[in-house]
Amino acid sequence: MAGDAVTLVEVGPRDGFQSVGPFIPTARKLELIRALYAAGVRRMEATSFVSNSAVPQMADAAEVLSFANSLPGLDAAALVPTVRQAERALAAGARHLVFVVSVSEAHNQSNVRRSCAESLEEYARIVGLLPVGVKLRLSLSTSFDCPYDGPVAEAATLAMLRRVVGIAPGAEIAPADTTGRATPGQVAGLFREAAVQLPQVQRWAFHAHDTYGMGAANCLAAWNAGVQVFDASVSGLGGCPFAPGATGNVATEDLFWMFAGMGVASGIDLSALVAVADDIAKLPGAQTGGRVRDALNARACLLAT
Amino acid sequence: MAGDAVTLVEVGPRDGFQSVGPFIPTARKLELIRALYAAGVRRMEATSFVSNSAVPQMADAAEVLSFANSLPGLDAAALVPTVRQAERALAAGARHLVFVVSVSEAHNQSNVRRSCAESLEEYARIVGLLPVGVKLRLSLSTSFDCPYDGPVAEAATLAMLRRVVGIAPGAEIAPADTTGRATPGQVAGLFREAAVQLPQVQRWAFHAHDTYGMGAANCLAAWNAGVQVFDASVSGLGGCPFAPGATGNVATEDLFWMFAGMGVASGIDLSALVAVADDIAKLPGAQTGGRVRDALNARACLLAT
Repeated sequence: MAGDAVTLVEVGPRDGFQSVGPFIPTARKLELIRALYAAGVRRMEATSFVSNSAVPQMADAAEVLSFANSLPGLDAAALVPTVRQAERALAAGARHLVFVVSVSEAHNQSNVRRSCAESLEEYARIVGLLPVGVKLRLSLSTSFDCPYDGPVAEAATLAMLRRVVGIAPGAEIAPADTTGRATPGQVAGLFREAAVQLPQVQRWAFHAHDTYGMGAANCLAAWNAGVQVFDASVSGLGGCPFAPGATGNVATEDLFWMFAGMGVASGIDLSALVAVADDIAKLPGAQTGGRVRDALNARACLLAT
Repeated sequence: MAGDAVTLVEVGPRDGFQSVGPFIPTARKLELIRALYAAGVRRMEATSFVSNSAVPQMADAAEVLSFANSLPGLDAAALVPTVRQAERALAAGARHLVFVVSVSEAHNQSNVRRSCAESLEEYARIVGLLPVGVKLRLSLSTSFDCPYDGPVAEAATLAMLRRVVGIAPGAEIAPADTTGRATPGQVAGLFREAAVQLPQVQRWAFHAHDTYGMGAANCLAAWNAGVQVFDASVSGLGGCPFAPGATGNVATEDLFWMFAGMGVASGIDLSALVAVADDIAKLPGAQTGGRVRDALNARACLLAT
C-alpha cells in the first residue's frame, strides 16, 4: 500500500484542549492552530460547541472556529452534541459538523445527558437542517469498550452503525476507541464487518486513544482493514485530570512516523509538528503522550553532544 | 489467528537491568526473577556474560543464571558476545546461549569491539563447541537502523542473515530493532522476505524497542508475517541513562495486552506481571515505559474512589 495517502485529522484543539484544566487563552489557541496549519495540517477538529458550564475550555468555540475557517484550505470541523449546539455552530460559520453519540447508554448519558435514542433523534434533526455544502461526520463513542459498562459487543456497535448510517448515509463514520482498551483484532474485525454490512458508507475514520499503548497498533490494524482517515492529537495531548496515567489520543507525530515509514504520505512536516507539540506540552495542565517527540528530542540532544 | 499461542521472552533481567545505573543487589534480582516466574514467565534472557568492567550490572551473571536454571520449566538464556564469554556461561551451567552480532560495523564495534567478520568467527567457534542439548539463539542487532550509521538496507540485513543461518541453521534467529526507528512495513517486509530466502530457519523471533512508540505495532506486523516469539521487558525497563526520552524494549504487559485481546495465549498472569513491573519501576535508576501498567493502575485508583 506504499504510495497511498492517509488523512490525519488533528483533534488536539478539541479532544486535547478540552482535557486541559486551566483555560487556554483564546489568542494562544489561535497561535497553536496557526502553527499546526503551517506544519501542514489540513483537517482539524477545531473546537466543540457544548455547554460552557460543563466544558469551560470550549467557551470560545465561535471565535476559534471563525479563525480556523479563515485559514485557506483548512477543513475545520466543530463537534456538536445537540440540535441547539449545531445551530450555534452553523451560526458561527461551521462548514463541517461532527456529531457524537455512544454505543453504550451509560456513556451517552454521562457524555451528553441523553439516551442514545434521544441523541439519534437530535442527529436526524441536524441532518434535516444541514445546509447544502456543510460536511458531516458521525463519531461513535465506546465502539469497543465503555468506561462504565465494560466491553461493548461488536454486534451492538454494528447495530448502532446501521442506525446512524440509515439517518445519513453520506456522513463520514468514525468509530472511537474511547477507553483505549481495544486491541488490533477487534479494530480490524469491526471495520471489515462494517464495510461488508454498510457498503454505502463512502468514508470510514478511526479515533484511537493510546491509553493502553495500542494507539499505533490499532491504527495499523484499521489501515490494513481499509481505513484511511485517522484522528490524532499533537503531542498526544489528552488524558483525564482525575485519572493519573490515563493518556489521550494517539499522538499525531507517532502516526506520522508510522505512516511515513510505510511510504504513506500525510502532507505534514514532522519537525514543524514536533515544535508545536513541544509548545503544547508546556501549556499549564497539559498531559502529553506519544513517543516520537521525546525520541527525536533525545536524539537531537545526543547529536548535539 | 485467534487461538494460536505466542511466546513472550522476558528480557527485563538482561536488556532491562543492564540499562540501570546503580547495581541491583543480586538477591533483589533473584527475587524479581522468581516473581516473573510466578507470573507465568517460562522463557527469559536472564543475564549476559560480558566484561564486568564494561557492564558492572552483569557481574553476577553466574549466580543469576544458576538461580534461573533452578526454576522448573524456565528456559533461561544467557547472552554472550565471544567464545570466552560463552565458555564462562557454559561453565556456569548455561542451557541456552544468545549470541549477538550487528548488521552494521559501527554498532558491532561499539557493542562488542570487533568487526562483524570477527564476531561471525566467534559465532562459528561457539557453534562448534556447543554441547548437545544447549539451545542457541542469534540476535541480530541493527537489523533496521543503526544509531551510528542510520538506516540499514534490507539487503544488508538479509545478507547477514544468510551468513548467520549458514553457520547454524538450527538456531532461533531474532532480528532486533535496536533504535526503535523501524516501522511496521519494514518489519513485515524483512520477516516475509527472510522466510522466503531462508526456509530452513525453524524459528524466527523479533526484538522490538518502543523508543518511537512503534513497539506494539511492529510486533503486530511481525505476527502477521508469521513470527510467534517476541522479546519484551517487564515495565518497559530500558532506555539509556545518557539519552533522556529514549525508552527500552516494548513492555511485556503491553504485548500481553495486545495478544490477549486478539485471543492469543501467552501463559502469563497480567495482574501478577503488573505487580512485578511496579516493583521494578521502584528500582533506583529505573527508566520504565509502556502504557498498560499506568492505565491499569489509574483504573484501579479510579474504581477505588
